[in-house]
Amino acid sequence: MFALEVRDHIMIGHSLPAEIFGPAQGMHGATFTVDATLFTQAIDHHGLMVDIGLATAALSAVLDPLRYQNLDEEPEFAGKFTTTEFLCRHIFEQIAARVRAGELSDENRVERLRITLHESHLAKAWCEDDI
Amino acid sequence: MFALEVRDHIMIGHSLPAEIFGPAQGMHGATFTVDATLFTQAIDHHGLMVDIGLATAALSAVLDPLRYQNLDEEPEFAGKFTTTEFLCRHIFEQIAARVRAGELSDENRVERLRITLHESHLAKAWCEDDI
Amino acid sequence: MFALEVRDHIMIGHSLPAEIFGPAQGMHGATFTVDATLFTQAIDHHGLMVDIGLATAALSAVLDPLRYQNLDEEPEFAGKFTTTEFLCRHIFEQIAARVRAGELSDENRVERLRITLHESHLAKAWCEDDI
Amino acid sequence: MFALEVRDHIMIGHSLPAEIFGPAQGMHGATFTVDATLFTQAIDHHGLMVDIGLATAALSAVLDPLRYQNLDEEPEFAGKFTTTEFLCRHIFEQIAARVRAGELSDENRVERLRITLHESHLAKAWCEDDI
Amino acid sequence: MFALEVRDHIMIGHSLPAEIFGPAQGMHGATFTVDATLFTQAIDHHGLMVDIGLATAALSAVLDPLRYQNLDEEPEFAGKFTTTEFLCRHIFEQIAARVRAGELSDENRVERLRITLHESHLAKAWCEDDI
Amino acid sequence: MFALEVRDHIMIGHSLPAEIFGPAQGMHGATFTVDATLFTQAIDHHGLMVDIGLATAALSAVLDPLRYQNLDEEPEFAGKFTTTEFLCRHIFEQIAARVRAGELSDENRVERLRITLHESHLAKAWCEDDI
Repeated sequence: MFALEVRDHIMIGHSLPAEIFGPAQGMHGATFTVDATLFTQAIDHHGLMVDIGLATAALSAVLDPLRYQNLDEEPEFAGKFTTTEFLCRHIFEQIAARVRAGELSDENRVERLRITLHESHLAKAWCEDDI
Repeated sequence: MFALEVRDHIMIGHSLPAEIFGPAQGMHGATFTVDATLFTQAIDHHGLMVDIGLATAALSAVLDPLRYQNLDEEPEFAGKFTTTEFLCRHIFEQIAARVRAGELSDENRVERLRITLHESHLAKAWCEDDI
Repeated sequence: MFALEVRDHIMIGHSLPAEIFGPAQGMHGATFTVDATLFTQAIDHHGLMVDIGLATAALSAVLDPLRYQNLDEEPEFAGKFTTTEFLCRHIFEQIAARVRAGELSDENRVERLRITLHESHLAKAWCEDDI
Repeated sequence: MFALEVRDHIMIGHSLPAEIFGPAQGMHGATFTVDATLFTQAIDHHGLMVDIGLATAALSAVLDPLRYQNLDEEPEFAGKFTTTEFLCRHIFEQIAARVRAGELSDENRVERLRITLHESHLAKAWCEDDI
Repeated sequence: MFALEVRDHIMIGHSLPAEIFGPAQGMHGATFTVDATLFTQAIDHHGLMVDIGLATAALSAVLDPLRYQNLDEEPEFAGKFTTTEFLCRHIFEQIAARVRAGELSDENRVERLRITLHESHLAKAWCEDDI
Repeated sequence: MFALEVRDHIMIGHSLPAEIFGPAQGMHGATFTVDATLFTQAIDHHGLMVDIGLATAALSAVLDPLRYQNLDEEPEFAGKFTTTEFLCRHIFEQIAARVRAGELSDENRVERLRITLHESHLAKAWCEDDI
């Protein structure tokens, strides 16, 4: 099995308005370092899983609508708690759609995907699944 | 699959009195950066696997009896070699017991656990298993 | 010259409402990893600059009012742009006041202070000056 | 399941002479931080998976022929694109052979292996498989 | 005193053809993580030293001619040993020229500059001077 | 001004038997990641401050007597508190002696030295001075 991982980051604001979130209920924010990890069984005759430039561009394109945004005002997140875990899955689904659409390679070689969000030097979360 | 990982650290002394340990046979010590990684299939309606504060508190509570200790003098480790791998499993069992006792979430959502100990910038070990 | 550095972090929300801030003008946020570095010419007979526990506690106490806050709503920041540089200086002044008040050591051994804020894996800023 | 990971690095030159590699077609180079991760189901009565000194020595020995080399001139890579993924597999096979030869432990306890190459602070790849 | 630091990286090939360089005499290469640190005495009424976007763009522009290059074939480096220290100074001079030309701020607020090149997880070098 | 920094590490045991050390009074230990930073005004015609291999070897040689040791039993530390700051100065003096003896370069080009000990992911200390 092969894996390829590329990194980008976003800085966002949001609130988590439920009692369980304690001090994080009000408007605050985070820098999320975001890693996208692609998994495959085989590499091609160029020795590649996918073109790393395309992988980096796909991650950047998926993060663009989130950069410097107040997630509380994003219609697609209405009624949702934009936790680190939730955002992992959201970004997972966006990248997975691009993989399935053939944006990263003609042969849809990527079989599995992991999206990791580091919320601080002490905590991170990830979402991983087959595509 | 979702994962959530939190970090803490301990500074301990110990010896590894068997020939195979070479220069580490005598009393020495280590700073172990400790990561606890919790795995689950699903997050709840708050977008959470478990409360990150509870996860951090559980890791801290498990590490408290080890902080600044000479592991050679801990009765529970008598006759054991407190290697990095051994300590991974010891901490794994302590955290797993707290998960099973429902300390991290009412629904015992955590299905799998990984405990990683970084012993230096060049070496680390982990223990991972279902709970 | 000796230096001692301790680390903590905050997650905050804010806006930077001036044209020069481009995409960061609206409400967004950041995780700031915060390092406090204390400088002195001499260590004491215990081999210490200051007690590391006291240094860590002072940094934590200074960061407490900022944790999970929307800085736009903090009266002390009214009319200010809470940039990374500005926050470095703000935290610098808070820690410096505690040093001068003798909170970290009886002898006011700390002569110089640096406060570093990492805003992402690609950018950081610091403020450094004599106390 | 237990894992043990050790780190080393190499600095190499190479070219990637195919159109898909874009700006990386000509002679350039990389520092690869290399992590070798060994997996096993059980540790022995010393609390060890394998001796960490032997694991470190095996990784170093496998990397020695690559250190400071122009990979374009290595006969064993003739006609190959020495991508990060390709080098992960190459190093994987070299370490796996040493494991199977009993170099790391008498009992061939290592069941699975992962080789990770970090090519920059933004990208890494790995190859993982049973031995 | 304030400092602002931004990060980028390059992957290059080169040789160091003198006996003192031992195993690094032949064609090989490196990934250099490059940090540009700008120093000033005062920040402006926006709370800024310089616009971080302009600092990042200046660093990127200076690194562009080096990305994926064989430094042995760069006319400007003819007869030079392109060591880590040498490249620190080369990049220093390029960024300093842009600062002096007013590219980063109208008021030429930057008074001092440091360029750091990390050549591996074990070694780095930097060049620092007034502008 | 130029700087060159190399990294190594040690794992040691010690006690800090004075009330001020609180929980660290008994036998415990630490992994210290150790950085040696050499400073000079000028590099030579090879583009070097000092040979990086010699710098790495000097650091390793100075650390060798400390590796896996119980510092409480080292005669040279009798009656001393082997704090992080103290060990920074001890290693500083050992490296400085080697620099002055011409071990790193014939011309004694190194003018200043910094020794940094990272005791955890949250704390470090350094000692810096002219040679």
